[in-house]
Amino acid sequence: MSHPLRLGIAGLGTVGVGVVKIIRQQTALLKARTGREIIITAVSARTKDCDRGVPLNSYAWEDNPVALATRDDVDIFVELMGGADGPAKIATEAAIAAGKHVITANKAMLAMHGHPLALAAEAKGVSLRYEAAVAGGIPVIKTLTEGLAGNEITRIMGVMNGSCNYILTRMEDSGLSYQEIFAEADGLGYLEADPQLDVGGIDAAHKLAILSSIAFGTKVDFDGIVIEGIERVSIEDINAAADMGYKIKLLGVTQMTGRGLEQRMQPCLVPASSPLGQLQGGTNMIVIEGDSIEQVVLRGPGAGMGPTASAVMGDVCDIARGFQLPVFGQPAKTLTSATPAKSTRPAPYYLRMGLVDKPGALAKIATVLGEAGISIDRMRQYGHADTSAPVLIVTHKISSAAIDIALEAMERTGVLASAPVALRIEEG
Amino acid sequence: MSHPLRLGIAGLGTVGVGVVKIIRQQTALLKARTGREIIITAVSARTKDCDRGVPLNSYAWEDNPVALATRDDVDIFVELMGGADGPAKIATEAAIAAGKHVITANKAMLAMHGHPLALAAEAKGVSLRYEAAVAGGIPVIKTLTEGLAGNEITRIMGVMNGSCNYILTRMEDSGLSYQEIFAEADGLGYLEADPQLDVGGIDAAHKLAILSSIAFGTKVDFDGIVIEGIERVSIEDINAAADMGYKIKLLGVTQMTGRGLEQRMQPCLVPASSPLGQLQGGTNMIVIEGDSIEQVVLRGPGAGMGPTASAVMGDVCDIARGFQLPVFGQPAKTLTSATPAKSTRPAPYYLRMGLVDKPGALAKIATVLGEAGISIDRMRQYGHADTSAPVLIVTHKISSAAIDIALEAMERTGVLASAPVALRIEEG
Repeated sequence: MSHPLRLGIAGLGTVGVGVVKIIRQQTALLKARTGREIIITAVSARTKDCDRGVPLNSYAWEDNPVALATRDDVDIFVELMGGADGPAKIATEAAIAAGKHVITANKAMLAMHGHPLALAAEAKGVSLRYEAAVAGGIPVIKTLTEGLAGNEITRIMGVMNGSCNYILTRMEDSGLSYQEIFAEADGLGYLEADPQLDVGGIDAAHKLAILSSIAFGTKVDFDGIVIEGIERVSIEDINAAADMGYKIKLLGVTQMTGRGLEQRMQPCLVPASSPLGQLQGGTNMIVIEGDSIEQVVLRGPGAGMGPTASAVMGDVCDIARGFQLPVFGQPAKTLTSATPAKSTRPAPYYLRMGLVDKPGALAKIATVLGEAGISIDRMRQYGHADTSAPVLIVTHKISSAAIDIALEAMERTGVLASAPVALRIEEG
Repeated sequence: MSHPLRLGIAGLGTVGVGVVKIIRQQTALLKARTGREIIITAVSARTKDCDRGVPLNSYAWEDNPVALATRDDVDIFVELMGGADGPAKIATEAAIAAGKHVITANKAMLAMHGHPLALAAEAKGVSLRYEAAVAGGIPVIKTLTEGLAGNEITRIMGVMNGSCNYILTRMEDSGLSYQEIFAEADGLGYLEADPQLDVGGIDAAHKLAILSSIAFGTKVDFDGIVIEGIERVSIEDINAAADMGYKIKLLGVTQMTGRGLEQRMQPCLVPASSPLGQLQGGTNMIVIEGDSIEQVVLRGPGAGMGPTASAVMGDVCDIARGFQLPVFGQPAKTLTSATPAKSTRPAPYYLRMGLVDKPGALAKIATVLGEAGISIDRMRQYGHADTSAPVLIVTHKISSAAIDIALEAMERTGVLASAPVALRIEEG
């Protein structure tokens, strides 16, 4: 029997406490499965004296995560503090430099600094693992780096932010506005400390950037992602989409094209009856397509104590078993620089706009669309009480570039009462 | 750079040819991801001279798979011949004895001889891997043994035989009889050489036995599975189920209970709108539930050249990366003997029977059900041309034991024109 594998855990929020619970409750199971005893030697958090529902006094306490990360009696530094920079990054770098393995749930840090951290870990011969950083409990990093290692990945898409999906499905169920449900979700603690990370699509885009790197052998390129949040999705959009048999989802798509890497995270309409359309509340779903596998779909809880801790423990067990692989599935020094590319694959679009209530307004919009080469599949103008007339348009398939041109031209017509909303329709 | 990893492939059917194709086409990708060159040194099959669509003449040929398995220039013996016993087992044992890693897609061999083979492989310190044996391209073995290693698994259920699902969904779409669609599937080559393995539920039960062993730390216990095939599912059952909002699926369920291990593979009714209900054609779906993860669902192609070869290559890459873990996730010598247990969790049941056309027949059946403590939720008697009156009954929740008692008692009433069909309704 090997010597025990010793964890130092920095960050004792929901996920950290979940990891402590599993290690305390499943001691025998973990030993049977990995052949090693898995123990916690030290912990660290911002405040020491608060009841977290698990006994912590048998573990050494460190106020400073760097001190924790570099302790002699720590084999794996488990970073659960969060934040792209600051203590999380400093402590992670210190752990790697001290020859410790690192497990993190920190998607922001990996999306911003994944490549240099991977270079450092690989140079030092330690593992840097992050199953919990993407799609909560779903073992998507393992599936992509290991299970599908024989595939050339062609496309990944999915719903990877449970909070946004909660807001969008709650809006539909309740008929309440974005603002009302946002306040509800915030009150329930479902949103990040900075909610913009969730509803602005940033958190989901962090995850997409990580998946792209593994899938296509490119350096993490967060800045190359076209990001649009859900803040402008109105209850009218959700109802109009439902009328036409669609749901609105914050959908991430990444694919390598002849022109470069197309990465986008934006609200889209998907068929209500499709697996993505049926996704309720905080559940995540990742669709992976490869040259041999065709398509695999993974669905599971995108957050929460148990599921996220389960993902961390998967990484712990792999390290206990001695598994080691490059951080992004192939050596970081072989990752290429991605060339960001905009989507050219045509798709139908859903457009909503408010028009000033005067003759010829709609004609001006129709003219602009025609000039951009966009033909209209369906159009609906609603009755209205105020001076702005709501208009919905579904286009035939068209490129995103044509939509951008039309949106810009619309602004110049002078008939818009407010900025128009344009949502791509993904048929699957 | 390490020396090349050398494969010897026995069996050049669909899957074997798929593996050859990936190794030839993705040479650079595989090397980038695993750090090693992956090559084929020798192959073996029943007939040498036939065009398989890939060039094979650069590989040594062996008529005898045992000779292939024990060649000095083979590091991994890839067993793709099939069959629980015979050449596949003999060659696998020979490979292990010679200190070779083994990768197999052979669910029958693992379901019947998994435990002694695992003991032998672990004693010899070699890998025995079988991702392709369960659910085709879906990396379910990896998810269970590695990704969810921190979980106490509570239940697994799923659709794991694509041929049966093809037959059942084709029956519904076409309105044709089981016999007609069976003939169609057989003609298309969708069924095993012995189709009873598919439609009798045997193949799916082999897979379930393997998943149970990993999930619950028990020796593979194929004989402990309650198995029922789809041969007695009629188009009338499918239509009646559809009328009530259900689909019929060959569903596997395994869970550890206080009384022992409950394993069953039988046609069940599932809600038409549920993920399992929506599964079309050859697609497989596995639902895994654990104490921390809650629920993860994996969906993907259950068979076919690309997907199954993708699963084999996942195992190849793991071995190339030096990963090694016990065959069933914990050392074979620590696996316990399962005590088979029947299901006691009550469920509604769908019953179909033909009654002889005379007064009081239905009353006798109703009496038998009442005496077994079964209350009726819905009942329907159809008009009929011949002397047998078709009757459908949906019960309230009841144990399978009570259903068995009632079925036996029905036989003694003398009013049955044919043996009744009883299908469990799984609400999810």
